[in-house]
Amino acid sequence: MFKRKRLDEISWDEYSSLTQEEQAPFLVQNNGRPYHVLLAQQFDRESLDNLCDLATRIRRIAKSKAGMGFLSSLLDHKRAMLYFHQPSSRTFLSFYSACLILGIRVAELRDPSISSEQKGETMEDSVRVFSSYFDMIIMRNPVQGFVDKCAWMLSNTDRPLPIINAGPGKDQHPTQALLDIYTLQRSFEKCGGLEHKNVLFCGDLKRGRTVRSLSRLLTFYPDITQTFAAPDELQIGQDILDYLDAHGIQYTVTHDFKGAIPEADAVYMTRMQDEWDTKPGESARIRMEDYWFTGDDLKRLKPTGVIMHPLPRRHEIDTACDNDPRAVYWRQMRNGMWIRSALIATVFCRDSEINNYYMLNIK
Amino acid sequence: MFKRKRLDEISWDEYSSLTQEEQAPFLVQNNGRPYHVLLAQQFDRESLDNLCDLATRIRRIAKSKAGMGFLSSLLDHKRAMLYFHQPSSRTFLSFYSACLILGIRVAELRDPSISSEQKGETMEDSVRVFSSYFDMIIMRNPVQGFVDKCAWMLSNTDRPLPIINAGPGKDQHPTQALLDIYTLQRSFEKCGGLEHKNVLFCGDLKRGRTVRSLSRLLTFYPDITQTFAAPDELQIGQDILDYLDAHGIQYTVTHDFKGAIPEADAVYMTRMQDEWDTKPGESARIRMEDYWFTGDDLKRLKPTGVIMHPLPRRHEIDTACDNDPRAVYWRQMRNGMWIRSALIATVFCRDSEINNYYMLNIK
Amino acid sequence: MFKRKRLDEISWDEYSSLTQEEQAPFLVQNNGRPYHVLLAQQFDRESLDNLCDLATRIRRIAKSKAGMGFLSSLLDHKRAMLYFHQPSSRTFLSFYSACLILGIRVAELRDPSISSEQKGETMEDSVRVFSSYFDMIIMRNPVQGFVDKCAWMLSNTDRPLPIINAGPGKDQHPTQALLDIYTLQRSFEKCGGLEHKNVLFCGDLKRGRTVRSLSRLLTFYPDITQTFAAPDELQIGQDILDYLDAHGIQYTVTHDFKGAIPEADAVYMTRMQDEWDTKPGESARIRMEDYWFTGDDLKRLKPTGVIMHPLPRRHEIDTACDNDPRAVYWRQMRNGMWIRSALIATVFCRDSEINNYYMLNIK
Repeated sequence: MFKRKRLDEISWDEYSSLTQEEQAPFLVQNNGRPYHVLLAQQFDRESLDNLCDLATRIRRIAKSKAGMGFLSSLLDHKRAMLYFHQPSSRTFLSFYSACLILGIRVAELRDPSISSEQKGETMEDSVRVFSSYFDMIIMRNPVQGFVDKCAWMLSNTDRPLPIINAGPGKDQHPTQALLDIYTLQRSFEKCGGLEHKNVLFCGDLKRGRTVRSLSRLLTFYPDITQTFAAPDELQIGQDILDYLDAHGIQYTVTHDFKGAIPEADAVYMTRMQDEWDTKPGESARIRMEDYWFTGDDLKRLKPTGVIMHPLPRRHEIDTACDNDPRAVYWRQMRNGMWIRSALIATVFCRDSEINNYYMLNIK
Repeated sequence: MFKRKRLDEISWDEYSSLTQEEQAPFLVQNNGRPYHVLLAQQFDRESLDNLCDLATRIRRIAKSKAGMGFLSSLLDHKRAMLYFHQPSSRTFLSFYSACLILGIRVAELRDPSISSEQKGETMEDSVRVFSSYFDMIIMRNPVQGFVDKCAWMLSNTDRPLPIINAGPGKDQHPTQALLDIYTLQRSFEKCGGLEHKNVLFCGDLKRGRTVRSLSRLLTFYPDITQTFAAPDELQIGQDILDYLDAHGIQYTVTHDFKGAIPEADAVYMTRMQDEWDTKPGESARIRMEDYWFTGDDLKRLKPTGVIMHPLPRRHEIDTACDNDPRAVYWRQMRNGMWIRSALIATVFCRDSEINNYYMLNIK
Repeated sequence: MFKRKRLDEISWDEYSSLTQEEQAPFLVQNNGRPYHVLLAQQFDRESLDNLCDLATRIRRIAKSKAGMGFLSSLLDHKRAMLYFHQPSSRTFLSFYSACLILGIRVAELRDPSISSEQKGETMEDSVRVFSSYFDMIIMRNPVQGFVDKCAWMLSNTDRPLPIINAGPGKDQHPTQALLDIYTLQRSFEKCGGLEHKNVLFCGDLKRGRTVRSLSRLLTFYPDITQTFAAPDELQIGQDILDYLDAHGIQYTVTHDFKGAIPEADAVYMTRMQDEWDTKPGESARIRMEDYWFTGDDLKRLKPTGVIMHPLPRRHEIDTACDNDPRAVYWRQMRNGMWIRSALIATVFCRDSEINNYYMLNIK
């Protein structure tokens, strides 16, 4: 775990000029648990394992009314604000449900136009005002670096509170990376765990944040090989490949998606990210049909293989696959709720209490 | 009660080509209670009586803090989503309050534009994703058949959950029919019950869903006569009259609203449904003044009579009537909250528990 | 305290033609506690002291999980509606949090366009319908007198419920006045209390409601002097000065803001209210720099002095002041949440229960 550095002992200019790896130690608590959750890089193998284990325990505890009663008593004295400047119903509802599971009382601000920011206030002032009513802010904001700035600012007041980044525009979306890891971990828990597996990424690998974050996090797990299947224009960035090289990870870059399927333990599909097009129609000109997962491809997929997708999808996965047991993309969404519950419980240091309850009542 | 048929053993094409009466058995649980709530036709006399009795018990239990504590402990381990693609504050707030009474934790999605559907996802995918966070979806959607499609789809996944239709465009609005029945039942509980009464419908009977649903449901009650007062252009459809004939119900079709008032036990007023006009100004040309209920009409109404209206109203009922004890349209709204509470409790099979509490603590 | 007059024994025309001072007795309960909260004038010294004491007790009780458990059990059988026709995130979230603290279950209607008012219903009808689902309505509406009209209307039905004015356009914003008084009281509780202090108001004193309300309320406290620093075009209204004269209050009207700072115990800054401009650019032409509080001004301010601002701010207070311990404008926001909790608890007569808990467990 990281040794904590103090966010109230560094200026914003200094902090924001650090690399993400250098920023990570400023985001943890004295006890090593996350405080602000801003970066995928602030998690290591140990903390990922802890979160995944905790998510599974929460999920099992939640099966009974008594268990739900326990969970929803843990943080029923806390109030959280969901502050979404950017539309994302699925991420919003996932966090909202995670808060409800833990008993947190939630207020929301989804539409920036209904805010008193109209009266000429800076966004920083708005966040500081809103923070005065709550114990945590879960924020989605498209402005590069804004969520980090708010975390730094609040840590420099006499009433700091944790901020969770719910995924802005081109930036980090750390909890998406967590749910992907958790889905992989769950998918292989009965067949040897996540280690020694082959993960096949397919689609718009250049612009999809989720693939980039997940690819880095997978380097924590021994002997995972990665395959990147995409047309040249959308292939994974060289910075990621350099990172994999630096960590001694085996990978393949290919055009042959269909040929790679039989070797894959997990197929991670992504949609075209055409909202980042720099020229109109740029993406539409790229032929993608060979990078779609069809009903036929189910036959080529290992019996123990899984198909993942961060959703929303368009045509990348045929709906004929939707009810195949290896299509885990629906469960992946629900996993997002569980891992976010685990994360929030950990931020508020209630993880031990949940683990104790689990040992006494469930295991 | 209906004998259950399984929604996961019929294709969507087959199911959607059935009549509503034929669809009804697919919507109940093994124990006969409703699962999905999509159609007024899925209720019979026995289930209506059970729901009305339960609503009254919930209403009485809710009078004390202890009673509210009991009610809100019943389903506090459940999460519901209110998914409204079509604006309707009153229906929204009524369902929302019903959920709160039972302790259900509610998330809402009221504005479709703030959804990730923007990224090219199908609406079915959105619903399936959202369903992964919740235990029930209460849905209002203007697209013909969409709510039914979602219910069928979810019943064909490995994580089915109940869907309640909160009333789309031209389609069914089953819980409105329930609250009308409950209001009639409550209004006459001290003067012989709903049987043998005369119900006078007035206004835009051609296009108002609520009148059509209520008229059919009233055939369950012996010896209710129905009177339809409207200008020819807005008179009740022949299909409803055929239905009444087939069930041996006595009815009158008339232009003489004022003359019909003294005989009426319940006067059910409706507003002009001009949002369904096919030509501009079509409705505005119809002279409606003779079909308005005025302060003077209060004198002609029986002392035990009641005035109902599904609201919103325009000019159909003079505000001078608003505080007359026979004007039950405000209470009708509150009845909607109680009957929806009863319905949701029944879907989750907590009706017996409420009945037991009532017998022990209230009766 | 006021002797209660009954709102259901006076017509709307009579009531609305009364002065605000004459209206006040119609808004209290038999026991003297507020019922509807519509006017700053309905509070006197005794009720202000009670509310401030209660707010402080709630704040201290809320520090522990057990205390929060007590508070959130007080009104968990009640449902409130936040009905905001006018955007104001800070007031909305403050009330929302106050309700959550007391366990009240809250529904919200923030965007009037998603309402069934579209179908031609009057706003009065909408409010009466919505009222049927709730036990309290907290309303913000820009139409002059609308909130009062609703309070009167509901008190004339057989299901009255309290309405709290959350601050419309040019009208009253009574809970803002309460939070200002509470902030002053808290700020000086360790240095002799609010009495004998000098309050310096600065900025757009002509059009800011908060200054006008606070100036009047301060007349309840012996020997408070008031200073009004503003350019002529924005100086405090003569009606306020007449009111101060009538109550024997000492005041100063000045252009010299900077010169007044060293004498001030509290500096109350306000922003330009240019949304009330009658000609385009009217406000922009006024030179305001001399009425801004800068980092340098911190040196002139007494060590025990405080800087307040109702927020949002623009440039009136330099951000360099933000983390000075005398900058209480952030805490002022949080005080709003506490005093609103105290107010709502008092409306529902739970104040004694809170005071008892405090005496037994905290003091």
